[in-house]
Amino acid sequence: MNIGFIGLGNMGAPMALNLLKAGHKVHVYDLLEAAVQTLEAAGAQRQASPAQVAGQEIDILITMLPAAVHVKKVYLGEEGVLAAVGKHVLLIDSSTIDPQTAREVAAQAAAQGNAMLDAPVSGGTGGAQAGTLTFMVGGDEAVFEKARPVLQAMGKNIVYCGGAGNGQVAKVANNMLLGISMIGAAEAMNLGVSLGMDPTILAGIINTSSGRCWSTEVYNPYPGVVETAPASKGYAGGFGADLMLKDLGLATEAAKAAKVPVVLGAAAQQLYQTFSTQGNGHLDFSAIIKFFSTK
Amino acid sequence: MNIGFIGLGNMGAPMALNLLKAGHKVHVYDLLEAAVQTLEAAGAQRQASPAQVAGQEIDILITMLPAAVHVKKVYLGEEGVLAAVGKHVLLIDSSTIDPQTAREVAAQAAAQGNAMLDAPVSGGTGGAQAGTLTFMVGGDEAVFEKARPVLQAMGKNIVYCGGAGNGQVAKVANNMLLGISMIGAAEAMNLGVSLGMDPTILAGIINTSSGRCWSTEVYNPYPGVVETAPASKGYAGGFGADLMLKDLGLATEAAKAAKVPVVLGAAAQQLYQTFSTQGNGHLDFSAIIKFFSTK
Amino acid sequence: MNIGFIGLGNMGAPMALNLLKAGHKVHVYDLLEAAVQTLEAAGAQRQASPAQVAGQEIDILITMLPAAVHVKKVYLGEEGVLAAVGKHVLLIDSSTIDPQTAREVAAQAAAQGNAMLDAPVSGGTGGAQAGTLTFMVGGDEAVFEKARPVLQAMGKNIVYCGGAGNGQVAKVANNMLLGISMIGAAEAMNLGVSLGMDPTILAGIINTSSGRCWSTEVYNPYPGVVETAPASKGYAGGFGADLMLKDLGLATEAAKAAKVPVVLGAAAQQLYQTFSTQGNGHLDFSAIIKFFSTK
Amino acid sequence: MNIGFIGLGNMGAPMALNLLKAGHKVHVYDLLEAAVQTLEAAGAQRQASPAQVAGQEIDILITMLPAAVHVKKVYLGEEGVLAAVGKHVLLIDSSTIDPQTAREVAAQAAAQGNAMLDAPVSGGTGGAQAGTLTFMVGGDEAVFEKARPVLQAMGKNIVYCGGAGNGQVAKVANNMLLGISMIGAAEAMNLGVSLGMDPTILAGIINTSSGRCWSTEVYNPYPGVVETAPASKGYAGGFGADLMLKDLGLATEAAKAAKVPVVLGAAAQQLYQTFSTQGNGHLDFSAIIKFFSTK
Repeated sequence: MNIGFIGLGNMGAPMALNLLKAGHKVHVYDLLEAAVQTLEAAGAQRQASPAQVAGQEIDILITMLPAAVHVKKVYLGEEGVLAAVGKHVLLIDSSTIDPQTAREVAAQAAAQGNAMLDAPVSGGTGGAQAGTLTFMVGGDEAVFEKARPVLQAMGKNIVYCGGAGNGQVAKVANNMLLGISMIGAAEAMNLGVSLGMDPTILAGIINTSSGRCWSTEVYNPYPGVVETAPASKGYAGGFGADLMLKDLGLATEAAKAAKVPVVLGAAAQQLYQTFSTQGNGHLDFSAIIKFFSTK
Repeated sequence: MNIGFIGLGNMGAPMALNLLKAGHKVHVYDLLEAAVQTLEAAGAQRQASPAQVAGQEIDILITMLPAAVHVKKVYLGEEGVLAAVGKHVLLIDSSTIDPQTAREVAAQAAAQGNAMLDAPVSGGTGGAQAGTLTFMVGGDEAVFEKARPVLQAMGKNIVYCGGAGNGQVAKVANNMLLGISMIGAAEAMNLGVSLGMDPTILAGIINTSSGRCWSTEVYNPYPGVVETAPASKGYAGGFGADLMLKDLGLATEAAKAAKVPVVLGAAAQQLYQTFSTQGNGHLDFSAIIKFFSTK
Repeated sequence: MNIGFIGLGNMGAPMALNLLKAGHKVHVYDLLEAAVQTLEAAGAQRQASPAQVAGQEIDILITMLPAAVHVKKVYLGEEGVLAAVGKHVLLIDSSTIDPQTAREVAAQAAAQGNAMLDAPVSGGTGGAQAGTLTFMVGGDEAVFEKARPVLQAMGKNIVYCGGAGNGQVAKVANNMLLGISMIGAAEAMNLGVSLGMDPTILAGIINTSSGRCWSTEVYNPYPGVVETAPASKGYAGGFGADLMLKDLGLATEAAKAAKVPVVLGAAAQQLYQTFSTQGNGHLDFSAIIKFFSTK
Repeated sequence: MNIGFIGLGNMGAPMALNLLKAGHKVHVYDLLEAAVQTLEAAGAQRQASPAQVAGQEIDILITMLPAAVHVKKVYLGEEGVLAAVGKHVLLIDSSTIDPQTAREVAAQAAAQGNAMLDAPVSGGTGGAQAGTLTFMVGGDEAVFEKARPVLQAMGKNIVYCGGAGNGQVAKVANNMLLGISMIGAAEAMNLGVSLGMDPTILAGIINTSSGRCWSTEVYNPYPGVVETAPASKGYAGGFGADLMLKDLGLATEAAKAAKVPVVLGAAAQQLYQTFSTQGNGHLDFSAIIKFFSTK
């Protein structure tokens, strides 16, 4: 297929490369020349602007951008995608943004006849490179079925979440719970060890009990408990604390808009903000356990 | 074996019955006559006080009491167990209490030559009846091995947690994390549904993602998502909010004694206290989701 | 002077009336016909749109709107104020909005040559009627001095807070602290009374000690302690819980934008959200004390 | 009068010295020899144990001890005060402890015919030296009137709080609110300054508005705003963060016993615990503002 791809950052670049590997023709755009050159070297066509990408003979246009403000600009700006794209082109935004903005942009696309999906991912840069991302997809179900084969070139789990914006809702709800349970895991591990337990024995008990969660089983924040976890590698790599802070910011914002309480969600957001303010935003998000211990 | 059993409440009574079923001879004591009669009818020997139980020809003495204050009184009181028990008797306290008290009592037992284990359980009254409890056991490992066959008559998972008090540490750490992740699950489910998602789809996504935890998979707080969960039965039965409040109280107390922070743990304790003060302490603890929604 | 006034709600209407009483000529606009009629009856000139107000021979234009979205639309919209107003007109926005939006609008006004002040108020509808509001004003100091006499027709304390947006910053910081200390006062009064103290004696001690604050002295949340406080009148009137919720929303949003933590501020926002979700948003904000007690 | 005084620490020693200055005869005891020598040099009579102090010809016995565990031991221990003291002696405990323990000890004193008051103080070591402490007194009112002249030798405000334990209740409620409003003040000041306001202007506005509290007016946590505050002297001296942590610990414990929620109180306790764990417990408690800012 002919695909447009806008946004070649740490996530977007390997995703676009996987599309090329799968045999698609890909038109790319990014503000950074270096990113464009890498894709060009791998066989992509360089375009000079989002509007130029949108103006090519393409079937699908995918965007992977840092935040809602960029999504709005790229889609709705004067030289943006909506102004230049043909009606038959299926639009997919894989950026992680708030559900409200996702729905606004999708509504404007629909108003001019373009089908659009929100399809944020989880799995990090490792998953982007390996083509094993999870896509959480919101929009019309028939449109989702059309997009699925292309998404499968970049990911392993392609999950339909319901109407427009629901991909973002699913991601925001999951990641809020992740942030809460990671802090909870950190507090529980730190408490147990401070009271004299061996961390591996404690993790073993929790993981066969009602406290078990992804954060204790797969990604335990206590060093040495899970060998492959960032905690056992000095909290390098992984999913940065500042990215978790961004997602918790989206969650609390979405809750505000929906007028529902997220008491622990907001507490988690504040703890990650404090942790980041104290200079630790670059560490893996499981490093929050250091926040609670003497240095 | 000859076993003494003190404390025949909702948990203790079925545990003692399982010991009888396994062929042990059991001497029992409780303040409530009705509880004693039930056990007597099943073949137990009635005794008139903790000291009298302790004074029988027994190999093991097990206690299952509501709180630390009762444990102290039964073991250390003037007419208590320690004053009357023979040196060869192995003491096992299955009450859920703070680790510090567990260690104090164990130290006093050790000082007079009695081996003692703390062995709190999880699994609720259902597990007590079915004999499928999990025992988290602290104390000397050789002593643990001696106790194991007897505990297996009442439970399925018998886990060694390390030195004296560590059974309580494991339970308190696990249940604090459980309380936190249940509130997190409630907030995430409520947020997602408020933003337009189907609860079953949302739970499905979380359960295959990084937000997954026992509270979303097995015990989802949103009605209708997990058929066997209390949420699907009007939040009746299960593990009462006031019991979770008690365990979170133990966790925050233990953290205070250890001088470590448990920020979300304390927030969870306060939310359950508020929920209970508003009149909901008798509901299953997953009913905390109602706290966040309009009625 | 000739003054334009846009936004004639519970606050705006009495403010505009006070301008008329002070002898100013006032051109008004509001979406609600009834509000316009009241002002017209008092001598104001009715105009058909924000742009028409802006197009009159006026010296100063004042806006009093519900939220940032309305401020943006009224000033920056296609038929908005900036498109129609003369360069010599001094713009004053008295709406309570986030500092960032206030600065964006002021910057656009400045770019086309219009001086602009942000001047949110405190004092409620009572203060608006009595002309005793406090104005917290951000913008150029010389411009502030020009505006002062007009603001004095509507308020008693006219406080200069520094550059553009600082009026909003002052209000948001003050009201966040107010929300926190009101909940703190509610918890402290409720705790003390639950432990057996007379509420008036407890308040007396706090008010001569280090815990004293406006919320204990002037506006005590415990019924009967301060006769003139909403707590002594069934929590009717006063400053609604939903308005406090709005201000705490602005504070946490501003903190997010500034990347600084407001841990108790966010907790207060969530508690008011929960209180509101449970159906109490219409009560005075001191009614939060009911949240913590049995009903 | 003849007075016994047990506990000659940073608070107790200057309090006992003030009793000597006022012309009373004072019998003293402390575990530390140096403390006893200082008082002896000033004219006090040294005694060898709490029981020996209690056995002298005294009218009043005052204790000033670090925590509930010491109060219990000194009063209720085998060689304790109650076992040795005459019925006519009025007992006054000025330690800051939980209300429950205060009531238990007072009840045991009453049971053997001794009147007892709980009389915790505020004002710090400076107030103890200057004789300007505030005494919050619980117990029988007639007994309080007898004690008042003696307390006035050590303090300026002698406040009657109601029945036994109410002095502790008042202190715990006041100091919990103080801890909450100090963190609130820190967050509000830090937020406002981060958003571009001058700290002195911001404090000025808050102090004439609804956010005002002792923590913004007298003890502002932002350096340079109040010259006499610890914040303007590198957070040295004052009321240590670890002492605030102790008082918040008492408040959350008392709330647990009373089964009432203190959501922000518990959050404040946790924030001070985290601050202390990070190595800052020795700083004045207003230094919590550093917790929220980059260093």
